[in-house]
Parts: sequence; C-alpha cells; structure tokens
Amino acid sequence: MKIVIVGGVAGGMSAATRMRRLDESAEIVVFERGHYVSFANCGLPYYVGGVITDRAELLLQTPESLRARFRLDVRIDHEVTGIDRAGQTVSVRNTLTGEESIEGYDRLILAAGATTRSEPLDFGLATHTLRTVDDVDHIDAVLAAVDGSPSAVVIGGGFIGLEAVDNLVHRGVHVTLVQRGPQILTPLDPEMAAPVVADLRAHGVDVRLGTHVVGSDAPVDSAGTAATGLLLSDGSLVPADLVIDATGVRPDTSLAAAAGLRIGDSGGIWVDETQATSDPRIFAVGDGALKTDAVGGAGALVTMAGLANRHGRAAADTIAGRPDAAEPAVGTGIVGVFDLTVAMVGWNEQRLVAAGRAHRIVHTHPSSHAGYFPGAEQMAIKLLIDADTDAILGAQIVGGSGVDKRIDVIATAMAAGLGASALSRLELAYAPQYGSAKDAINQLGYVADNLLHGTTRSVQWHELSAELAAGASLVDVRTPAEFAAGHLPDARNLNLDELRARHAELPAGPLIVHCQVGQRGHTAARLLSQLGHDVRNLDGGYRTWLAGQA
Amino acid sequence: MKIVIVGGVAGGMSAATRMRRLDESAEIVVFERGHYVSFANCGLPYYVGGVITDRAELLLQTPESLRARFRLDVRIDHEVTGIDRAGQTVSVRNTLTGEESIEGYDRLILAAGATTRSEPLDFGLATHTLRTVDDVDHIDAVLAAVDGSPSAVVIGGGFIGLEAVDNLVHRGVHVTLVQRGPQILTPLDPEMAAPVVADLRAHGVDVRLGTHVVGSDAPVDSAGTAATGLLLSDGSLVPADLVIDATGVRPDTSLAAAAGLRIGDSGGIWVDETQATSDPRIFAVGDGALKTDAVGGAGALVTMAGLANRHGRAAADTIAGRPDAAEPAVGTGIVGVFDLTVAMVGWNEQRLVAAGRAHRIVHTHPSSHAGYFPGAEQMAIKLLIDADTDAILGAQIVGGSGVDKRIDVIATAMAAGLGASALSRLELAYAPQYGSAKDAINQLGYVADNLLHGTTRSVQWHELSAELAAGASLVDVRTPAEFAAGHLPDARNLNLDELRARHAELPAGPLIVHCQVGQRGHTAARLLSQLGHDVRNLDGGYRTWLAGQA
Ligand SMILES: Cc1cc2nc3c(=O)[nH]c(=O)nc-3n(C[C@H](O)[C@H](O)[C@H](O)COP(=O)(O)OP(=O)(O)OC[C@H]3O[C@@H](n4cnc5c(N)ncnc54)[C@H](O)[C@@H]3O)c2cc1C
Ligand SMILES: Cc1cc2nc3c(=O)[nH]c(=O)nc-3n(C[C@H](O)[C@H](O)[C@H](O)COP(=O)(O)OP(=O)(O)OC[C@H]3O[C@@H](n4cnc5c(N)ncnc54)[C@H](O)[C@@H]3O)c2cc1C
Ligand SMILES: CC(C)(COP(=O)(O)OP(=O)(O)OC[C@H]1O[C@@H](n2cnc3c(N)ncnc32)[C@H](O)[C@@H]1OP(=O)(O)O)[C@@H](O)C(=O)NCCC(=O)NCCS
Ligand SMILES: CC(C)(COP(=O)(O)OP(=O)(O)OC[C@H]1O[C@@H](n2cnc3c(N)ncnc32)[C@H](O)[C@@H]1OP(=O)(O)O)[C@@H](O)C(=O)NCCC(=O)NCCS
Repeated sequence: MKIVIVGGVAGGMSAATRMRRLDESAEIVVFERGHYVSFANCGLPYYVGGVITDRAELLLQTPESLRARFRLDVRIDHEVTGIDRAGQTVSVRNTLTGEESIEGYDRLILAAGATTRSEPLDFGLATHTLRTVDDVDHIDAVLAAVDGSPSAVVIGGGFIGLEAVDNLVHRGVHVTLVQRGPQILTPLDPEMAAPVVADLRAHGVDVRLGTHVVGSDAPVDSAGTAATGLLLSDGSLVPADLVIDATGVRPDTSLAAAAGLRIGDSGGIWVDETQATSDPRIFAVGDGALKTDAVGGAGALVTMAGLANRHGRAAADTIAGRPDAAEPAVGTGIVGVFDLTVAMVGWNEQRLVAAGRAHRIVHTHPSSHAGYFPGAEQMAIKLLIDADTDAILGAQIVGGSGVDKRIDVIATAMAAGLGASALSRLELAYAPQYGSAKDAINQLGYVADNLLHGTTRSVQWHELSAELAAGASLVDVRTPAEFAAGHLPDARNLNLDELRARHAELPAGPLIVHCQVGQRGHTAARLLSQLGHDVRNLDGGYRTWLAGQA
Repeated sequence: MKIVIVGGVAGGMSAATRMRRLDESAEIVVFERGHYVSFANCGLPYYVGGVITDRAELLLQTPESLRARFRLDVRIDHEVTGIDRAGQTVSVRNTLTGEESIEGYDRLILAAGATTRSEPLDFGLATHTLRTVDDVDHIDAVLAAVDGSPSAVVIGGGFIGLEAVDNLVHRGVHVTLVQRGPQILTPLDPEMAAPVVADLRAHGVDVRLGTHVVGSDAPVDSAGTAATGLLLSDGSLVPADLVIDATGVRPDTSLAAAAGLRIGDSGGIWVDETQATSDPRIFAVGDGALKTDAVGGAGALVTMAGLANRHGRAAADTIAGRPDAAEPAVGTGIVGVFDLTVAMVGWNEQRLVAAGRAHRIVHTHPSSHAGYFPGAEQMAIKLLIDADTDAILGAQIVGGSGVDKRIDVIATAMAAGLGASALSRLELAYAPQYGSAKDAINQLGYVADNLLHGTTRSVQWHELSAELAAGASLVDVRTPAEFAAGHLPDARNLNLDELRARHAELPAGPLIVHCQVGQRGHTAARLLSQLGHDVRNLDGGYRTWLAGQA
C-alpha cells in the first residue's frame, strides 16, 4: 500500500505518523512545498513578538527525524501540482530546481491547508501574511530595517490579526488595526466584542472599525516600498513601516477542484465522516476539508489545529481498515490578546437570527474563582440555547483567568449533548482558588433552567429601547450608590432589599427590572411576579447593556 | 406552607433562598446552632494562613441581610435537638440562653452537614478541628500565644489536612503531618500521591506516614495544655504548640437517626432522587445526605460544597412542586498544596480492584499548554476506564496550572456518559498559551482508543516485577543520554529511532518497552509488534514507575 500525502504540517503529518504506527509495511510519501514540516504555525505570532525566542522550539521535526522514527519519505520543497485520478498519480514540482515528476498512489491524503482570502494589496507597500516561517522572517526583516520605533498596520481583526497586534505591541511597534466591518472578532456578538476593542485601545492600539485601506502616500507610479503610510477609507493616513494582511483564509481546494473532486457549498473539499472525498481513494483533512457543523448540520469550515490533527489520524485509521467516524464539529476557538482571553464555541446570536433559529440567550458576569479568595477576575459569558430542545448552540466568553476552562467545559457538554440547564448539575472541581461552589458554569445552568421552565423571563439589551417605547417601565434594583455611579436612562431606582415593602410605588403595566449583572434582577423578578406584576429581567444587567452601547 | 431548615450554611441556605424565590408566601425558618450563617467554610484554612485577610469576606450574609432580601427567619445560636415526625415539630434550644422551644413544620429540610469522625485526643494538649469560624479563632489564639516560631502537628493528610499544612507553613509555622496509613490523600492511588509527599517535604513539612499519635510529653496526670510535644507511634516526639485534627468527617445523622429516618449503609441519611428522606415531609441535603454514586450505583458520601448547594436548591424545587431529580454523583474534588494542584473524580484503582471491577488504566504526563510556548508545566494524569464499556470510571491529576481545567473536562465527560476514547474527539480551545493541538485530554482519548481496540497493550508499574520474573525482557527506548541519567533495573537500552534497524538484537520472548512517559513506548510497541514481537508498553513510562517506588 502506497500512501501519498499533500502537506506536511498538522493534518498531513498526523496522518503520516499514525499511518506508520498502524502499518509498518506501507510506503508513505509526504510532499511539502515549503521548506519546513510539522512546524508550530500557531506559535508564529509569538515568535514575531519575541515571546517565543528559540526558533528551534517551533521546528521540532525534520525530514530526517521523521525518517528515523517513522520511516516517512518526507520531501520538502516539493509542490504537488495536479492529480490524475484515473491514473492514481500526482504530478510534483521541485520548487528549488523546477524539476517535475510523477508519483503513483494507492491512497492520497490532501492536507494542503488554507490560503489567504484576499488579493495582495498593491499600494507601493509590501503586505505580509503571517502563516509560515518565511513570513515571519520577512516581517522580522522589515521591522529590523526601521530606524527608531516602527509602525505597523494590521488589516483584519480576527484571531490571527489580534495575535499579530498583541505581539507587535509587545515588540514595541505602534499598531493600527483596520477592520472593514463594524466589529472585530466576528464569531462574537457585538456586545461581547466591544470590551476587546476597549482593551486594545487601552494598550495603545489605534483601532479603526468600519474602515478599509484605499491607498498609500506613495507616488501613484511608484513601485516597491516607496510608501510609508496607508490611506484609509475614513480619509486618514496611518504610518505603516509594515503591513500585515490578516483578512482571513479560505480552504485551499485548488488541487481538489482541478481534479473534479466534490467541493462543498461553503467552499471546502467535501468529505464523508471517514474523511473520504468523492473519490474513495482520496481523503482530505484539515483546513481544506469540510466538517459537519454540530449546530447547523451542513458542511462547515473550522480551521483549527485540533481537528486537523484529529482528522489526519482518522484518515489513516480509515485507510488501515478501521474507520473512525468523525463527530460533528462544535468549532471551539480561543485567542489571548493582552490581558484578555476571548473564547467561543458554536454559533453566535447573529447567525442564529439569520438562520431563523429559535433560541434563548443568557449573559452572566461570574468570577473566575470564589470572590472571597484573592485574585478573582470577572468574565463575561454569553450562552445560546435552542428554544425547543434546551441544547447548547454556542457560547462566548471574554475575561481573564478561567476563560479557557469554562469554554472547554461548555464545548465538552455541547459535544456530549448535555442540555443547557444540565450545566447546573456538573460537579466541577471547587476549592476557593479554582472556582466557586456554584461555579460560573453551574450558574449558567441555573439561569437556563429558569428560562426553560418559565420561572424567569428576560429581555435582551438590544430589545430594551423597543420595550420601553412600547410602554414598559424600567426599575433598577441596585443600591442607590450603584445607581448614582451610573445608570440606564429612564430607570427608576428601587433597591432589591426594599422591593417587598415598596413595590406598590411601581407603575402599573409591564416592568423590566435590572441590576448590575442580572442576578439580583432575577430575585427581584421572582418577587415582583409573585406580587402580581408583569415583570422581566434585563439579561446580563447594566454591564451587558453598557457593553452593547459601545 | 411552613418550611423549617436545620443548618444555615451551604445546603440549608441554598434551599432557603431558592424556596423564597419559588414561593413568596411560604414561611421559612432556618435554625443554625452556630453564630454565623452562610459563611465560606471552604475559605477558613486560607484565613488561618493569612491569604484571606478580611474576615468579612467569609461572612457575606447575616440573619438581617437574609431577612431584608429573602424574608427568611434565620435564628442563629439555635440548635435543633429533636424531631417529632408524628407531630411535625422540632424541638429547639437557644445555645446562648438554654431556652427550649417547639417549632412546627409542614416540610423539614435537614442540612446539618458533617461532624468530625474521631474522638478528641486527650494527651494534655487541646486539639482543634478546622470547620467553623470559632475554630479559626481558637487556632489564631493558640498561635498568637507562642513566643517565637510556633510548631504544629496536623493529624490527617486529606484535603483539609493539606490545606491546613499549606496555610500554617505560609504563616511561618513548622508543621509535622501525621498520617496513620501509608499514604496521604487516599482518594488517589499511591503513585499519584507520592509526588505530593515529596512536594510537602520540599517545603519543609515533616511528613510521617504509617504513624499515629500515642501520647505526649505531658505528665500523665496533667490537665489542660501542659504538653509541648506529641509522641508518635514511631517512638519520636514532635513539637506541638498546636494540634489540628483533620482525620476526616462523617455525616451528622444524629437528628435523623433519633427520629427513625432511614440511614444508608455508608452512614448518610437515605434520600430519594428528589432529596426526600424515608419520611416524605422531611428532606435531607449536603454532607449529611447520601448521594447515588455514579460509578458504583449505591449510596455514597460526597462531602462537597457544590452538591450541597445544588441539592439544597433541588429540595426547594421538590417542595415547590417541581421536582428536579438528582443525577448520580461523580465526586469531583480538588486541593491546592504549595505549588501543586491535586484533583480527582470518580473511583481510584484501589477501589476498583477491591470491588472486582474490570478496568483499564492510562497514565500520561502531558504539558499544561504547548511545549513551545513559555511556562508550560508538566502534570501527571491517571485515567480509569471500564474494561467492558469504555466508560470513564475515574481520574486523578497532579500538577500545576491546567489541572483544574482537565479534571473539569473529565468530570463533564463522565457525567455526560462520554466514553474514554471519545475524549480524543473533544474540541478543546487551543492557542499555545492555553493547551495543545492534541490536548492532554485528547491524548488520553487516543491512548484509551488504542487500548479499546487492542492496538496497544500495556503493563502497569506495579505489574512490572512479576512480568520480568515470569520471563519478559525490558527495553528502554529512550536515548542513551536519558538512559545514563537514570534507568530501570534490568532494562536494556535501544533508542526508538534505531529500533527498526536493530530489533533483531532483542531477546526472544515477551518484551516490555518503555520510555519516559509512555508516548515513545507506544510507537515502539506498535513497531515491534508489527515486526513479530510479543510486546507491551509500560504505562506512564519511567516517570510513573519511579513515582510508584516512593
Ligand atoms: C499564524 C497562525 C496561528 C494559528 N493559531 C492557531 C491556534 O492558536 N489554534 C488553532 O487551533 N489553530 C491555529 N491556527 C490554524 C492551524 O494552524 C490550522 O488549522 C492547521 O495548521 C491546519 O492544518 P492543515 O494540515 O489543514 O494545514 P497546514 O497545517 O497549514 O498545512 C498545510 C501544508 O500544506 C502545504 N501545501 C499546500 N499546498 C501544497 C501543495 N500543493 N503541495 C505540497 N504542499 C502543499 C503548505 O505549504 C502547508 O505547509 C493558526 C494558523 C496560523 C497560520
Ligand atoms: C475547612 C473546610 C474546607 C472545605 N473546603 C472545601 C472545598 O474547598 N471544596 C468543597 O467542595 N468543599 C469543601 N468543604 C466542604 C463543604 O464546606 C461542605 O461540603 C458543605 O459546606 C456542606 O454543606 P452542608 O449544608 O451539608 O453543611 P454545612 O455547610 O457544614 O452546614 C451545616 C450547618 O448545620 C449546623 N447544624 C448542625 N447541626 C445542627 C442542629 N442540630 N441545629 C442547628 N444547626 C445545626 C452546623 O452548625 C453548620 O453550620 C470544606 C469544609 C471545611 C470545613
Ligand atoms: C507531531 C506530529 C508529527 C504528530 O506526531 P504523532 O506521533 O502522531 O503525535 P504525538 O506526538 O502527539 O503523539 C500521539 C501519539 O502518542 C500516543 N500517546 C500520547 N501520549 C501517550 C502516553 N502517555 N502513553 C502512550 N501513548 C501515548 C497517542 O495515542 C498517539 O498515538 P496514536 O495516534 O497511535 O494513538 C503532528 O501532529 C505535527 O506535525 N504537529 C505539529 C504541527 C501542528 O500540529 N501545527 C498546528 C498546531 S501549532
Ligand atoms: C449564597 C447562598 C445564601 C445562596 O444564595 P442564592 O441567592 O441562592 O445563590 P447565588 O447568590 O449563588 O445566586 C444564584 C441564583 O441567581 C441566579 N443567577 C445567577 N447569575 C445570574 C444572572 N447573571 N442572571 C440571572 N440570574 C442569575 C441563579 O439562577 C440562582 O437563582 P435560582 O436558584 O432561582 O435559579 C448560599 O449558597 C450560601 O449560604 N453559600 C455560602 C455557604 C457555602 O456555600 N459554603 C460552602 C462553600 S465555601
């Protein structure tokens, strides 16, 4: 059995090593057009930033080490240029010598990853992507050539854009972040992304939302790197010794498409749950291949290293005759930016609304651990719940320590099919420095349980003004001191602890109560509804509402 | 409806507040024999250690605050002394005045918690428990009275014993830890507990295993606190200005038993899944009540704050007519001791062996996050798996950062019924500072998958000597440098990367391969078995074996 693999990093190399462990007799050839295999692309931004200082840390494997241990035939600087499905061969070009060759296969695994989405800008300034070891070397060279403190423009506020921003600032670069749409981190909903923008600005980043690059200060006919600044659609000129294009990626389906393999609607290579493409001798894994979306069912693009590794191994299992069917993907992601951790899984509200999918929403602002133990940090959590089944459809968390833990627990619960209200039952490890007796996750479950049973009804921050316009009255149940320190327009203050005695002062008609984060509001809503009021609680309280105004 | 609650902390007060939110008209009376309600008992050790400095942090609620917000009738310094089930009354004694009274109930909730297991020692030295605010004040007073640097003996190396040790050391106290059995932290297996002992000793703690207190240096007829040291069963005398009894707790079932309520075999109050006792008008929650064990099915004692809070709320739900059935308990626990975090869930190996339950074992030593990113810390994980169903039966983790996250993910998977090999499929949030592309949890799943499918066979550290005696040969596949730095007796060294070429040098007959942690051993085992050898991998490698020798 001869297995040829296109792409020698996450998915491809995981397939190769597992294949070897399952079949010592197989012939395994890995083609990698770049000069490095099995490298830690996820570490590249941190190498730019000087957080990772030893280049060797990113490059643990070489063709030689992989040959010694796994008897792999790894050919770097070799690009696969075409697939002859009938003949079961690929054509290959040596990128150093230009030499062309043909390689036969019994099974072919496509693990070519993703490619940048945008056309390179051409405004007299070289733009750099941040995807390969070579990219990092180029970026390094540009920064090193600048006299004094360099300036950079990062285009695109997604995961990699933000990692670039963070690391450039860490390296002493002045950074402008240009985002075409109104919001960075589009997997988040706007009220969850807003605090991240505030944090970027607090760290000196010039964030330009709803803006794009329209030109440069270079003479129109200039070539090369004559420009020193970029012109933005808002009319401003921003300094740019370095321009990083982080506008996102799309699956690299060039080989597959040219070979007539089925391509999914959302642009990835179609595969069945054993990673087989529409040609049963050809498999695809990683950023280039479609995943089944756990929320929507259809083919989804999830460009994450974990799934690439996982599905690479699964393709080898299939080829070795022990198929290991893939699960639908929940799409967990995380990014650290300055002192914030931002994590998400599943779908966001905007996407659920666009799909017309009935859902419930919970916003909370719990502590990373028991409030009475030093060092607790507050985070913001948003949970999206299927209105019909109580299934968890997605979550977003922004905060400091403990964010990664909570998203992993939710991703696990989601994958396992636990309902949102069942989060209340999870026995999460509690000692005061790690969590809370009712952990953040349990509290989400309690709130979800209350929504599920109609014990509480809530109003979202973006529904508030319409509700007030339609005649509801807003009651702030925080203390007078909290109210005085900042409050919602139109709110009247009546402290929760006085509500029982003074509720008769409240106006007739629908009430909306709120507190700082929603918790006291819930107790207020329960009380008032039992006292005969028509009452709802502002989900996430003042804090979520404020975030929504940004 | 009148609800009387015995015990005003975790379970009792959670029942009371939820009850109020569900039923504004109920009369709710809470009796607490101590002087404080709703306090953070889990924070007490850290208050002793001076980590938590503000006493008010531990005492957030008062009878007044609970009356204002929840209209609760909280009576501190009131002990419930008996239950008249026929009459539906409890008898109550005011602990300050001695005054006795009778209180009727429609529903009674018992949330009296646990009580210390041991008889107080009487060797001329006062022993202190660490369970209440008063205990902490007594401990404080003893330490403050010592001239110079105080010495303490902590009896019992369980969770609270270790928290006491850590905090006393933090406060500058010299500590001897006395443990009757051969091992501290008995929920762990010995090879997992051993590194904790090493860490305690590295922090200057005098750990005495297999030892108990037999007397003191006080004159035989002395009363009071004449002694300054304790005599141990090993013949030594250890200094003891302070003695803390942390030998463990048992459910406080005194009231329930006297009232003829059903008590379970393992000593807690029997309850059904709605927290009802054998008397449908009486409920029990928290440390005093039995839980259904998720692994064993039978009644279990799980003395954790999370479940106490959870079941308190559930009892209120039941009383309010919307029963919320309890799930079987997995029993997640965690403790921080110096720079280590120790966490566990479910059953350990010793318990599975004792119960004759067929199981598989996995030991790994993964990084808290990607090895190429600074600051990664190694942890040790042990996973116990049902040999028939692949169900997760338990886990133990010892390490630094990231331990709490991994135990929570496993506890969630276990509660949701995910199989061990399904851990490989979890999409856990990966960026290099948070995890690995194949996270620690995924790797557990991969190893479990290999055991499930017979792709790999393993040998446990404690089985090794018998296997070698029976004729197996041991092959260390690490590098010669690793071998030279320390190796197993009887091992021959043959580096993994040379195995393919030189395997013919290996002896005939069964082979056991090993590396540092098991990972290279797995690749070696796969290779050798395909080359015709009868081979197994030493689970957890040299590191687990070493830990087992302690
Ligand atoms: C800067 C950066 C940071 C990232 N951070 C994270 C993170 O924190 N967490 C996370 O989960 N994911 C992260 N990712 C994404 C993650 O790296 C990818 O999801 C993963 O590497 C995809 O694996 P793959 O095998 O599909 O493709 P890749 O790992 O990209 O490998 C594809 C390889 O195929 C080669 N190739 C392409 N075409 C050919 C051809 N025709 N012939 C020969 N070789 C070819 C390419 O040169 C490339 O080396 C990051 C990516 C980047 C670039
Ligand atoms: C020092 C310490 C540290 C801990 N650390 C942790 C931890 O880190 N994580 C964790 O999960 N758990 C921890 N626990 C355990 C946790 O506190 C308990 O599981 C939880 O409090 C049990 O709740 P409960 O309602 O059953 O009992 P408790 O919270 O103990 O409340 C019972 C109350 O009932 C009162 N009472 C008893 N009998 C009567 C009576 N007859 N009349 C009136 N009142 C009565 C008692 O005075 C007591 O206040 C710790 C416990 C201690 C003592
Ligand atoms: C590293 C790489 C070459 C894969 O090598 P690999 O040997 O398959 O993977 P790992 O080193 O993670 O080891 C996993 C194997 O060890 C086994 N294993 C792990 N820990 C073990 C232990 N303690 N005991 C026994 N076996 C263990 C696993 O079961 C698995 O074997 P299997 O696939 O046969 O089940 C590939 O993942 C790669 O190139 N990664 C870098 C690129 C990348 O992922 N980039 C994106 C992220 S930055
Ligand atoms: C604090 C204590 C009195 C319980 O009070 P409580 O109001 O029931 O609990 P919390 O303050 O945690 O609030 C939980 C409630 O707020 C709701 N809630 C939490 N966050 C919310 C949010 N953001 N929006 C809306 N509702 C929210 C929950 O749904 C829950 O209400 P429910 O039970 O009606 O569903 C009790 O747990 C206690 O005494 N604890 C201290 C003692 C202890 O636990 N010791 C052991 C550990 S140290």
